Amino acid sequence: MDICGKAGELLINIRRNRPLIHHITNYVTMNDCANIILALGGSPIMANDPSEAEEVAAMAKALVLNLGTPGNDSLRSMLMAGKKANELNIPVVFDPVGAGVTCFRKGMCTKLLAEVRPSVIKGNISEILHLSGKPSCSSGVDSSEEVSNIADIVKGLAKAMDCVVAATGRTDIVSDGSITYAISNGHEMLSRITGTGCMTSSLIGAFCSLTPDCFTGAAAGILAMGISGQLAHDSLLPGEGVGMFKVRLLDNVYRLDKEIFIRKGEIYVQ
Amino acid sequence: MDICGKAGELLINIRRNRPLIHHITNYVTMNDCANIILALGGSPIMANDPSEAEEVAAMAKALVLNLGTPGNDSLRSMLMAGKKANELNIPVVFDPVGAGVTCFRKGMCTKLLAEVRPSVIKGNISEILHLSGKPSCSSGVDSSEEVSNIADIVKGLAKAMDCVVAATGRTDIVSDGSITYAISNGHEMLSRITGTGCMTSSLIGAFCSLTPDCFTGAAAGILAMGISGQLAHDSLLPGEGVGMFKVRLLDNVYRLDKEIFIRKGEIYVQ
Amino acid sequence: MDICGKAGELLINIRRNRPLIHHITNYVTMNDCANIILALGGSPIMANDPSEAEEVAAMAKALVLNLGTPGNDSLRSMLMAGKKANELNIPVVFDPVGAGVTCFRKGMCTKLLAEVRPSVIKGNISEILHLSGKPSCSSGVDSSEEVSNIADIVKGLAKAMDCVVAATGRTDIVSDGSITYAISNGHEMLSRITGTGCMTSSLIGAFCSLTPDCFTGAAAGILAMGISGQLAHDSLLPGEGVGMFKVRLLDNVYRLDKEIFIRKGEIYVQ
Repeated sequence: MDICGKAGELLINIRRNRPLIHHITNYVTMNDCANIILALGGSPIMANDPSEAEEVAAMAKALVLNLGTPGNDSLRSMLMAGKKANELNIPVVFDPVGAGVTCFRKGMCTKLLAEVRPSVIKGNISEILHLSGKPSCSSGVDSSEEVSNIADIVKGLAKAMDCVVAATGRTDIVSDGSITYAISNGHEMLSRITGTGCMTSSLIGAFCSLTPDCFTGAAAGILAMGISGQLAHDSLLPGEGVGMFKVRLLDNVYRLDKEIFIRKGEIYVQ
Repeated sequence: MDICGKAGELLINIRRNRPLIHHITNYVTMNDCANIILALGGSPIMANDPSEAEEVAAMAKALVLNLGTPGNDSLRSMLMAGKKANELNIPVVFDPVGAGVTCFRKGMCTKLLAEVRPSVIKGNISEILHLSGKPSCSSGVDSSEEVSNIADIVKGLAKAMDCVVAATGRTDIVSDGSITYAISNGHEMLSRITGTGCMTSSLIGAFCSLTPDCFTGAAAGILAMGISGQLAHDSLLPGEGVGMFKVRLLDNVYRLDKEIFIRKGEIYVQ
Repeated sequence: MDICGKAGELLINIRRNRPLIHHITNYVTMNDCANIILALGGSPIMANDPSEAEEVAAMAKALVLNLGTPGNDSLRSMLMAGKKANELNIPVVFDPVGAGVTCFRKGMCTKLLAEVRPSVIKGNISEILHLSGKPSCSSGVDSSEEVSNIADIVKGLAKAMDCVVAATGRTDIVSDGSITYAISNGHEMLSRITGTGCMTSSLIGAFCSLTPDCFTGAAAGILAMGISGQLAHDSLLPGEGVGMFKVRLLDNVYRLDKEIFIRKGEIYVQ
C-alpha cells in the first residue's frame, strides 16, 4: 500500500483507539493543538508542569515537545518527559519552534537533543537549517532548485540524528535518512493563521502513536494538514478570510478519511 | 417555578447585572471560558497569579477553580482565593480536571478540599468517582443501569461534602445530597472540541453568582451547555464539523433565553 | 493626506514588509493577538520569558506590553524588553489591562512607566482614568458631555507622559497632547468577545512599526478594529451571534484595504 493508503488506515486506527497524546507545548497555540487532536479522533493532554510531566508521558501513546514559548520550567518538563518516553519506547515528536532565533532557544535545542532521542523532528525550513548547522534565511524557499537542496539537508539531518526529519515550506520534505519524500499539498493561507505548524506536529504525534513506522506517521501528519488546508480554502465563499479558513480547517480534519487521503494526497519520492 | 424557568430567570438577571466571575483556571481553555462568560452576559476575569488572586476573589460574584493545568503557583492562588471567597460567602465552583490522573493532581484535590469549601463540584464521571474514593473507569457511562449507580455516587459525594455535586456524561447528574436530577440534554460532538467541560464550570459559576441556590445554578449551567450544544449541532450544514460546531455553540449561548430553557430543557428528578 | 488615507498606506507597507511584532502579553488572548497580526499582514512573536525577552525585542519592529495576566516574571520581561526597545528606538505600545483593579497591577504600572517610555498608551476609559490619577468609574462613558471631558483627560495624560494616548469606549479618543481625535467606528458586540482590547493594542503595534508617526499608527489601529467590527456585525445572518462575529472580525481585518479605511473611517478632530 502507498503512503496515502497507509495514512488512511492509521486514521481509522486513531478513531478506534483514541490514543492519548501528551503535549509539552507553547501557551499561544495549545488550545488549537488540543482541538486538532480531538478533531482527528485522538485524546490530547497538555501537561507542561514538571510536577507531573514524567507521569503523564508514561501513560501517553506519543509525546509532542514544542519550543514555541520556552522557559526553564518547560525545559525541565521536556527533559523529564522525553527521557521517560525514550525509556518506554513512546514516540517523541520535537518541534524546534524558532530554533535559531535566540540564544535561549539554541541552548534548549542543544540540551534536548543531547538528552532526548526524538522519533521525528518537524520544523520549518529555517529551523531545520539551524539544527543542521547551516546559516538560515527566514524568507522561505520559493524555487525548485532550492527545494532539491533542502531535500539533501533534511536527509542529512535525518541520517545524522538517526530519526525522521520533516521540513515544511511551499513543498514539504520528509526523510528517514535513506528515502526522501516531497509533499506538495497545502495552501498559502495556512501561514496566515497562527498554530498551523504546531498543529502539524500534533497531528504527526497522533499518526505516530499507534505504529512503529514514524516515517509514514510524519508524512501522514503533514498530508492531513496540507489536504485539510486546501479543502478549507476551496470551501471559502467570497468575502471570507482567515477567520472562516480556520473554522473550515478544523471541519476538514474532522471529516478526513482514507478515501480523501488517496484522492488528494500529493506525495512523491524525491 | 420549575428548574428550567428558574434558569431562565437567572439568565435575565445575569444579563442585567453582568456579574464578575473570577477564574483560576488552565491555560488551554481560558480563552474559551472568558468567551462563554461574555456570551452568556457575565464579566470574566482570569487572574491566576498569587500576587492578586485574593484581591480579585474579594470583588467577584463567583470563583471558578479549574485544575486543568495544575502547578504550585496556581495551587497557592486557589487556596488564597478560595479561602477569601469562603470568608465572604462568594460561591466557589471546583472543577477537578483529571482528578485521579496523576499524583500531583490527587494531592492538589486533597489539599484544596481540606482547606476550601466549594459550593459546587463539577466533574466528568471519572473525576467524580475519584473524589468519591471509587476505582474509576475512563470509558464513560453508556447504559441506564450504570446511570442509576452514578446517581447514588453523586448523591453520596454531595452529602459527604455538604455541597452540590454535578457529574457530566451521556446523562448529567446533579445532586445536593437529598434531591438528585438527571439532565439528558447535550450532544456527542461536545466531547470533540476542547473546553466544553471547563466552559460548563464557568457557566455554573455565572449561574451561581446571583443566587444562594447553587443547586439550581449548577443545573442551569449544565442545561445551558447541553441545550446550546444540541442547537449548535442541529444548525450544522452538510460538510461542516467541529470548527463550525464551536462557532455555533457560542452563538447559541449568546442567544439563549428563558423560553429556550423551558422548551428544550430535559431535566427530571432521579 | 488625511488619517484614513495614511492608515491605508501603512497597511500596504505592513503587507509588503511583514514587520515582526514582539508581544509580552497575557495568556487569555495571546492566540487572538497572534492571529490578528497575521490577519493584518504582520508577523507576531509572543516571547514572555525573561530568558529571551530582551533579545527578541531587539529584533522586532514594535513591542506590545499587555498587563492582562500580570506576574513577577512578565514584569521582569517587560522591563528588560521595554528598556531595550527604548534604547533602539523601537516603538512600545503599553496596554494597562485592569490598571486600577488590584494593588499588584497598580504597582506594575508605576514601575513600568518609571522605567520604560511608551510610544503609545492604549486603555479603556477606566484604565486611562486610573493612569491619570482620577477616580475611575467602570460603567463606561455613554453621553457626549462625558466624552468631551474624557478628551481633556486623554490629552492631559498624553502631554504629561509625552506620548500618544488612546482611550477606547463608545467613542474612542486619541491624542498626542496637542491634537485630539475622536473615532466613532466600532460596535457594541466587540465588548461581547474577549480580546478585542488586546487585539487593538496589537494592531496599534503593527501600525506603529514602520513609521515614526505613532499618532497616526494609534488611530489606524483603532480604526482597523472599529471598522472590521462594524463590517463583521453587518455580515451576520439571523440566528448568528458572538461565535460567528469573531470569525467575521478576523475575516474583515484580513480583507481590510486603503479604500475601506477611506470609505468607512469616522475620525474627526475633537
